[in-house]
Amino acid sequence: MLKKSIKFNATTVDYYFNAKLAVLSKIVDRVNTILVTDENVFSLHQNKFKNWNTIVLKPGETFKVQATVDSVIQQLIELNADRTTTLVGVGGGVVTDITGYVASVYMRGIRLGFVPTTILALVDASIGGKNGVDAGVYKNMIGVIRQPAFILQDLSFLKTLPHPEWKNGFAEIIKHACIKDASMFKQLESADLNYYQKKPSELSELIKNNALLKTKIVQKDEMETGERKFLNFGHTLGHAIENLYSIPHGEAISIGMAYASRISEKELKLKDATKIINLVKQYELPTEFKFDKEKVFSILKMDKKKVKDSIDYILLNKIGSAVIQRFSFNQLKSYF
Amino acid sequence: MLKKSIKFNATTVDYYFNAKLAVLSKIVDRVNTILVTDENVFSLHQNKFKNWNTIVLKPGETFKVQATVDSVIQQLIELNADRTTTLVGVGGGVVTDITGYVASVYMRGIRLGFVPTTILALVDASIGGKNGVDAGVYKNMIGVIRQPAFILQDLSFLKTLPHPEWKNGFAEIIKHACIKDASMFKQLESADLNYYQKKPSELSELIKNNALLKTKIVQKDEMETGERKFLNFGHTLGHAIENLYSIPHGEAISIGMAYASRISEKELKLKDATKIINLVKQYELPTEFKFDKEKVFSILKMDKKKVKDSIDYILLNKIGSAVIQRFSFNQLKSYF
Repeated sequence: MLKKSIKFNATTVDYYFNAKLAVLSKIVDRVNTILVTDENVFSLHQNKFKNWNTIVLKPGETFKVQATVDSVIQQLIELNADRTTTLVGVGGGVVTDITGYVASVYMRGIRLGFVPTTILALVDASIGGKNGVDAGVYKNMIGVIRQPAFILQDLSFLKTLPHPEWKNGFAEIIKHACIKDASMFKQLESADLNYYQKKPSELSELIKNNALLKTKIVQKDEMETGERKFLNFGHTLGHAIENLYSIPHGEAISIGMAYASRISEKELKLKDATKIINLVKQYELPTEFKFDKEKVFSILKMDKKKVKDSIDYILLNKIGSAVIQRFSFNQLKSYF
Repeated sequence: MLKKSIKFNATTVDYYFNAKLAVLSKIVDRVNTILVTDENVFSLHQNKFKNWNTIVLKPGETFKVQATVDSVIQQLIELNADRTTTLVGVGGGVVTDITGYVASVYMRGIRLGFVPTTILALVDASIGGKNGVDAGVYKNMIGVIRQPAFILQDLSFLKTLPHPEWKNGFAEIIKHACIKDASMFKQLESADLNYYQKKPSELSELIKNNALLKTKIVQKDEMETGERKFLNFGHTLGHAIENLYSIPHGEAISIGMAYASRISEKELKLKDATKIINLVKQYELPTEFKFDKEKVFSILKMDKKKVKDSIDYILLNKIGSAVIQRFSFNQLKSYF
């Protein structure tokens, strides 16, 4: 196990890499701690939850809504949770987003930790303090930014991770390589999902590096006024089609990254658009999708990144180097 | 008009004392601003809301719940509110609590201002950044702490303030005097509600001093780890009976202050308990109430100030000087 304490604006976050869930009992007081997970994780890893107070949610993005938050709060009241309680989200991005939000607003904020159980949550969702729920077709419309007290990575949860979830997670890893790390991009080119599924130490190293890459970006710009926006590469169009067509997050942002690469080719003379599209395909992710342009635009017009009649779009100069480009909706439309 | 800019941990809050609502158009961009108020304020001051985007809530503590928050968020989406929008709560404590909470979580936080229209909101609710909603009988169970960008005081709203609301507001003013300002206590003893209702400049001075008294306490201890707890004088028992018996906030905390004064007499040899109780009566507020001890204790056990089997109670050494005393629930019970 490797422990790293990393300072953010208001708090320090303890990262436990290559750890086991059992370590949790050394970080928190069991009597005063409530785990939040979903039915999938709970049924596949029941023994891990033994002797822990646990709230079990219905799984999936459909339940990432205020009604679930209301129900968790009701359960916390019934469990006598108070300001000394620690809440720990054990699950994928939906579980960490909801748990982080509840812990931020319950009694105006209680202690929070994460045990991410999917690749996507390990390298992305559990890191950076963004949390919240969707409002109708609008993703992450409600939430706050608040860092957890700790993040514990136990990769043994990945043994039961369904194959589509591997693809979802690698979409974010490819994103990190595109915006920030050309050498990681090369490393990914020389492998595939099957390789990482069979090489636990290479996988563990890749996950740690991705968690730290995102951490570094967030540390510099917690409130997303600058560089943190790079992490939205592929996410603007991605989020719109994800909720409109209920397709998996990784697939949606892969399509978004493919579009953003082609736009970068035209706007910024990016040479490697085809290389990026090929890498996305190599990790079994889609790069094309037939969508209703008008419907997608009506959602883009409510995107959080929108400013009046334009939107900040993330493009690439080259692999490993992102830029923010403001487009009017009309300009953008001409590209789709 | 007097403008003061006061620095808190993460932001600066601009206070506009003795101002007019019309000044608002110089502080915010009208097109990009949405006011939130309630039916009472809106119908009594319709002309003030002309040409402003306004969301009108049902009035009263009953509506200080998550369902109202959900509905305001839905309306913001329909009004195309984005990250450049400013939300301004124009009303009493319920309006400022809900507006502050919505502005904190909508798109992970948008700009916020307050125009408090009741004495309670002017001297207390609009100040200090606490916001949120109730969960069943548990007051302010859900919320965050986030300072507004500005607070604009327009005392012309008080012309239509119902008499019971004057009493509510003065309960908090008496509280401030008890915990922090012996000379204000004397000043209050030499007057009554009728006096302040007829002397606008004395009232305006009193309100400004109370707003600044609370501001100073919050500034030193925004996250309520120490001195800010003094502001809970009268509020622990007060909140419990307020929601259990649906009595006005000012009456509830007056009863709470009377109990806390008597307990201070026994625990800390406070000499002036009777003086405090008489001042409360002088401002037409109750000091006694028949309540169900068991029911009140079951609520106290879910109070945010609870720590395991004890609770931090605010007592007085003398008028103008508060202390935090931790009681076990059993000790406390013996006093009721």
